[in-house]
Amino acid sequence: MADQINRVVLAYSGGLDTSVILKWLQQEYNCEVVTFTADLGQGEELEPARQKALNAGVKPEHIFIDDLREEFVRDFVFPMMRANALYEGTYLLGTSIARPLISKRLIEIAKEVNADAVSHGATGKGNDQVRFELSAYALNPDIKVIAPWREWDLTSRTKLIEFAEAHQIMVTKDKRGESPFSTDANLLHTSSEGKVLEDPWQEVPDYVYSRTVNPEDAPDTPEYITIDFEKGDGVALNGEAMSPATLLTALNELGRKHGIGRLDLVENRFVGMKSRGMYETPGGTIYSIAHRGVESITLDRGAAHLKDELAPRYAELIYNGFWFAPEREMLQAAIDHSQEKVAGTVRLKLYKGSASVVGRKSPNSLYSEKVVTFEDDQGAYDQRDAAGFIKLNALRLRLLGRREG
Amino acid sequence: MADQINRVVLAYSGGLDTSVILKWLQQEYNCEVVTFTADLGQGEELEPARQKALNAGVKPEHIFIDDLREEFVRDFVFPMMRANALYEGTYLLGTSIARPLISKRLIEIAKEVNADAVSHGATGKGNDQVRFELSAYALNPDIKVIAPWREWDLTSRTKLIEFAEAHQIMVTKDKRGESPFSTDANLLHTSSEGKVLEDPWQEVPDYVYSRTVNPEDAPDTPEYITIDFEKGDGVALNGEAMSPATLLTALNELGRKHGIGRLDLVENRFVGMKSRGMYETPGGTIYSIAHRGVESITLDRGAAHLKDELAPRYAELIYNGFWFAPEREMLQAAIDHSQEKVAGTVRLKLYKGSASVVGRKSPNSLYSEKVVTFEDDQGAYDQRDAAGFIKLNALRLRLLGRREG
Amino acid sequence: MADQINRVVLAYSGGLDTSVILKWLQQEYNCEVVTFTADLGQGEELEPARQKALNAGVKPEHIFIDDLREEFVRDFVFPMMRANALYEGTYLLGTSIARPLISKRLIEIAKEVNADAVSHGATGKGNDQVRFELSAYALNPDIKVIAPWREWDLTSRTKLIEFAEAHQIMVTKDKRGESPFSTDANLLHTSSEGKVLEDPWQEVPDYVYSRTVNPEDAPDTPEYITIDFEKGDGVALNGEAMSPATLLTALNELGRKHGIGRLDLVENRFVGMKSRGMYETPGGTIYSIAHRGVESITLDRGAAHLKDELAPRYAELIYNGFWFAPEREMLQAAIDHSQEKVAGTVRLKLYKGSASVVGRKSPNSLYSEKVVTFEDDQGAYDQRDAAGFIKLNALRLRLLGRREG
Amino acid sequence: MADQINRVVLAYSGGLDTSVILKWLQQEYNCEVVTFTADLGQGEELEPARQKALNAGVKPEHIFIDDLREEFVRDFVFPMMRANALYEGTYLLGTSIARPLISKRLIEIAKEVNADAVSHGATGKGNDQVRFELSAYALNPDIKVIAPWREWDLTSRTKLIEFAEAHQIMVTKDKRGESPFSTDANLLHTSSEGKVLEDPWQEVPDYVYSRTVNPEDAPDTPEYITIDFEKGDGVALNGEAMSPATLLTALNELGRKHGIGRLDLVENRFVGMKSRGMYETPGGTIYSIAHRGVESITLDRGAAHLKDELAPRYAELIYNGFWFAPEREMLQAAIDHSQEKVAGTVRLKLYKGSASVVGRKSPNSLYSEKVVTFEDDQGAYDQRDAAGFIKLNALRLRLLGRREG
Repeated sequence: MADQINRVVLAYSGGLDTSVILKWLQQEYNCEVVTFTADLGQGEELEPARQKALNAGVKPEHIFIDDLREEFVRDFVFPMMRANALYEGTYLLGTSIARPLISKRLIEIAKEVNADAVSHGATGKGNDQVRFELSAYALNPDIKVIAPWREWDLTSRTKLIEFAEAHQIMVTKDKRGESPFSTDANLLHTSSEGKVLEDPWQEVPDYVYSRTVNPEDAPDTPEYITIDFEKGDGVALNGEAMSPATLLTALNELGRKHGIGRLDLVENRFVGMKSRGMYETPGGTIYSIAHRGVESITLDRGAAHLKDELAPRYAELIYNGFWFAPEREMLQAAIDHSQEKVAGTVRLKLYKGSASVVGRKSPNSLYSEKVVTFEDDQGAYDQRDAAGFIKLNALRLRLLGRREG
Repeated sequence: MADQINRVVLAYSGGLDTSVILKWLQQEYNCEVVTFTADLGQGEELEPARQKALNAGVKPEHIFIDDLREEFVRDFVFPMMRANALYEGTYLLGTSIARPLISKRLIEIAKEVNADAVSHGATGKGNDQVRFELSAYALNPDIKVIAPWREWDLTSRTKLIEFAEAHQIMVTKDKRGESPFSTDANLLHTSSEGKVLEDPWQEVPDYVYSRTVNPEDAPDTPEYITIDFEKGDGVALNGEAMSPATLLTALNELGRKHGIGRLDLVENRFVGMKSRGMYETPGGTIYSIAHRGVESITLDRGAAHLKDELAPRYAELIYNGFWFAPEREMLQAAIDHSQEKVAGTVRLKLYKGSASVVGRKSPNSLYSEKVVTFEDDQGAYDQRDAAGFIKLNALRLRLLGRREG
Repeated sequence: MADQINRVVLAYSGGLDTSVILKWLQQEYNCEVVTFTADLGQGEELEPARQKALNAGVKPEHIFIDDLREEFVRDFVFPMMRANALYEGTYLLGTSIARPLISKRLIEIAKEVNADAVSHGATGKGNDQVRFELSAYALNPDIKVIAPWREWDLTSRTKLIEFAEAHQIMVTKDKRGESPFSTDANLLHTSSEGKVLEDPWQEVPDYVYSRTVNPEDAPDTPEYITIDFEKGDGVALNGEAMSPATLLTALNELGRKHGIGRLDLVENRFVGMKSRGMYETPGGTIYSIAHRGVESITLDRGAAHLKDELAPRYAELIYNGFWFAPEREMLQAAIDHSQEKVAGTVRLKLYKGSASVVGRKSPNSLYSEKVVTFEDDQGAYDQRDAAGFIKLNALRLRLLGRREG
Repeated sequence: MADQINRVVLAYSGGLDTSVILKWLQQEYNCEVVTFTADLGQGEELEPARQKALNAGVKPEHIFIDDLREEFVRDFVFPMMRANALYEGTYLLGTSIARPLISKRLIEIAKEVNADAVSHGATGKGNDQVRFELSAYALNPDIKVIAPWREWDLTSRTKLIEFAEAHQIMVTKDKRGESPFSTDANLLHTSSEGKVLEDPWQEVPDYVYSRTVNPEDAPDTPEYITIDFEKGDGVALNGEAMSPATLLTALNELGRKHGIGRLDLVENRFVGMKSRGMYETPGGTIYSIAHRGVESITLDRGAAHLKDELAPRYAELIYNGFWFAPEREMLQAAIDHSQEKVAGTVRLKLYKGSASVVGRKSPNSLYSEKVVTFEDDQGAYDQRDAAGFIKLNALRLRLLGRREG
């Protein structure tokens, strides 16, 4: 199995799985491990990962800990939000969109430290392995990828924990005293899979949620906010200018408070199976609703409908791990072209699990009260034009009707 | 202007607009008017329309009042729901889907009474004229269509009311003592446009809503329900079998109670302008969420993703009035083909404006806990297969990377 | 009917139709007419148009004759060819693509001479009126458009000729002594409609063709040529660098000689009817085949397939006149993004009506003989990867098969 | 590697590759081999395969030789042709469409003889392995598939021939005294890959073609034929009713004679690489052109354009092996719905490599000379309607133009 590897860059969280992997790589490949720990806004201390890596024998200069939050939101989350991307009609792709950025840094670090491989802790049943590896191969076609979950014989969490205990790797227990859910977290969302969630008929227990209050516990009074957009991206909250990551962080706090962005989903994985997951995307949910709101007055119908038709494909590409594929970039070029004038202010009402657009305005508005009004429009629109419009749209149907008749 | 018309069938509600039209048709075309009043679940008494028509001189045998509720839900709403159709990502098409049915009956009645024309009360700025007329022409290519709003000089509500008062037509005032909003209602939804809604920055005042309580006034305790599906259509609520219209009526009551299905939208009309509308789709919102829920465990990924890609086009066709067009029927054939096994039970939580799927089960489930589990799957899935899967998916990206490198 | 018009810019060919229109505009609108005659490569002398305009009373400074051939090919034909656009699977859009350029110049001239209207000679049954006017309105929303064919009572060619003769406008006869076919010509193609062509069962008589020899009369020996591409556009013929219009002109001569690019088609017009036309696109046919050839080795599969899926919509937009619509521009952005590396040389065989790619090479080739070879590839591709690839692609089908079984 | 296999059904041609596989399966798996040889119109004697199988020790009752020609054309080729499917704009999918039928029979025979596995001779680099196996798994999720090319160490043709010679398997040489091209043949087409074809700059040598004469050697006089269609399928040639396979056979003879249907292509394989192939599809090329011809007068524009948009996806699904996937069936349902009235007669001219539609007529024609004529149409179409049609189509562009202005 084992190719000759000299040095491998591992996507390392410091948690149980990647700690086991670090040790296993050292043993199995007899190679030097470089760790990369990214701050994507997952809300954990990263410095403990440094100490753990040191303890595991990683050289200090081979420990990379990067704050990627601004890059994550600016170059990945916001471009995706411009597309109104929803996987299978509902999922905001919070895990999918983080993977290409992690791979991008893995490949950059591999170049810096002259490593010949990268490694990750994604399992062999999931989508993340695909996302990590497609991105890695796209950015460096000659890189080797080590996916321990597909290679080793630690084929269940039980065996993993045994390995950990045998190698003095600390195993944290979650609050119910059991081994943890499989979770992923970043500035956009937190996901959970596995355990009790594996029965799709069972409601997700409230203790699984970590990023939002239960809507029933949210404030009894609605809160109104505004988000300002420029060129399709959010730039301010309640009139206060913010960087992308700052804005998303602030929206996350609002979403948490009002119980917004919970999603219980059975989805189709790229690897061919259905899985049941729970997602919390508090700020992203608010943001995506607001983005549609500002588009509704600034985007031409032709552009808007083309976007709607392209969005499922675009979302599928991101879900499947094809961020760095030409077809995703082509769609992005089309989408970005449409966003030049998507600017203005959206007003939203947040209340017990819901975010609703209640107002929108824009210097670039295409909405014309003068044209649309039920009162006398003083010639802005000639209703008689509609007769010809209908007649010619109907012509083919009439010719068809004559044939069938 | 006026072609020679002998007899015209008018879509007649008994309200102000169509009462004016009835009178105007008699005067302008000097022809016999036949009235057709449909019960689509709009929640109004229809018998007063009979008396008004009689008063206006319509012959008793020329007054048609039909209960179309079951046909509406069974043959129009449910097929559309199978597609998960959303116009511009959010609108459940409650007005659009009723128009083809009304036109179908207008054309049937025209044949019965030997009329040479049909007429409707839709204005020259809106979508409904297009929907009525495209359907009418498709079903009878030789029918004449009279659209008074495009012909007469009553170019504002003010002039309309003057005409009404001049002809002893009763003008009802709404509760604020002003002329009414432009509204449309049926078993699926109620819409409102015009007046204060014409400023898209202004929040919709609560008094505009008529079908749902304000979420803030909804019960403080969630309610759980189940909906059963067969072949993609809802068949039971909380285990109790119901006809299509009965089910939607019951869901409307649940939606009303929990403040579900309000939508404040700026949309793009087919006639080329943006308009701002308010929609209430209480039962339909719950139903559509449940339908996606049952699909999530019973629909194959390939089918599900194809449906998602086709849905925006399908929704646009319905919105634009092309229900009776071959391309809508082709899409319907594809969609219906996918629904054969879409059966099972969805459990939902209704709470203060939201309906959320919390569980789903099906005798036809494609979800396999055995395959997806994080625990030992006893060989149901070989994780090593994923390596080859990724390698071949990556091959073209690697060849590309080599070129760019 | 007649709005008050002071000055109108007319798309003027100097032929019968537009000469009648010139006169009619002067009479009917009592306004000043500015003529614009474009050299799009239609192969006619343009200077006679100047004299005719002078004779009709147009001021010398109001006669515009522009050579637009390079702009036409560079900014309209080539971008369209990048998309491999074919309307209804076969038509290379030669008429459609010229209209937006003519409108663009009409609007520019209208601004220069301070005109308040533009006018064209397209009939009320065809697509060209739509293309002219959508482009004009997109570029100047306040322009007035006069479409004489929709306004006047010269409702047949017979009446038109009577008007011409009554106003001393010269009527040319075609070679068979009858009034002419309706034709359109430019550097990309020549089209003919009407007359004997109106019976779609009748073969197009050979005398209708003007740009190509009958394949039966073409040389008995094939001719081989090469076309070089850079960034998706043709740049050289047989190794000789050429400007866009020069290249297309040279290809036209080759196509003419070998009888390439004839098309006999029943197509669907945007205005709702079917029509039968004959097209000759000699150089464009060769060029489009060559473009697919160079793409075949330089374009990634994901990009290529996305292009193929977008192309019918793109072609429809151009056919329907939406060149200056945001959705066409979005698609163009996507397409252009894909063409960055589309460079290389295509070798073609021209023979009796056919152009066939027989070789293609590129510095950017993605074709790898090393990977694809049937002989030993020395590890460039691991055939065992295919097993996993197939297994995971099959997984959902197997789960489905188990359910159905 | 080797699972325990008792009995395997092999897709057996009697040629070198599958003869080697037969022997290898017996040796490697120590199992009983059942052979299945299909007559798909490849134009070879099948009875020699029986003798070879007997010689190799296969039991007489385990030798299946089936004539599948009618099923192939009726249930696979014609449905695909209804879609106007072209892979990458040009390839008529002749190999792809045969694979699912072979797999279907493999699985049926496996059931009959109680076999636990199927096997095929497709290599690990190609598409056919995917097509065979996806179809097999879809039809029997529990079947085992043995793909010797992915398992054994005969990693090149050279080694294969050594194995054959070591096991007394006869190795035929092609006419140039070298090991053969990789070819595939059936009633729809013949393909060739490998050898000199691996250099995409080199023209395909004429000796590679086997199904068509060189256009230069084709008759100097065009031949005219008619094909009749009913419900989208061909039913007669020159007025003579024919079964599907008979019709295609007759068209193949016509195509061969006139040098029609040669294609030299670099294509993108599903497994991620580009390959260069040569295809001859003589009858299929004529048929597909004729099918578009009859559609052009019988299919509504909405249906036709939707078909054009769906066709690339449909073709990709067939190319990739997803014939038995729900999404292919959904698309087929849509396509078939459109074909109900696709009936009539198409007249074609065959000449030196080209097939061109020169006439089409139909009892279901939607073409209306009365509407389209340039002469007086006596009110069939009101040209003034076009003004309103254009105005409303332009409205959104004008609102956009005002914003940009």
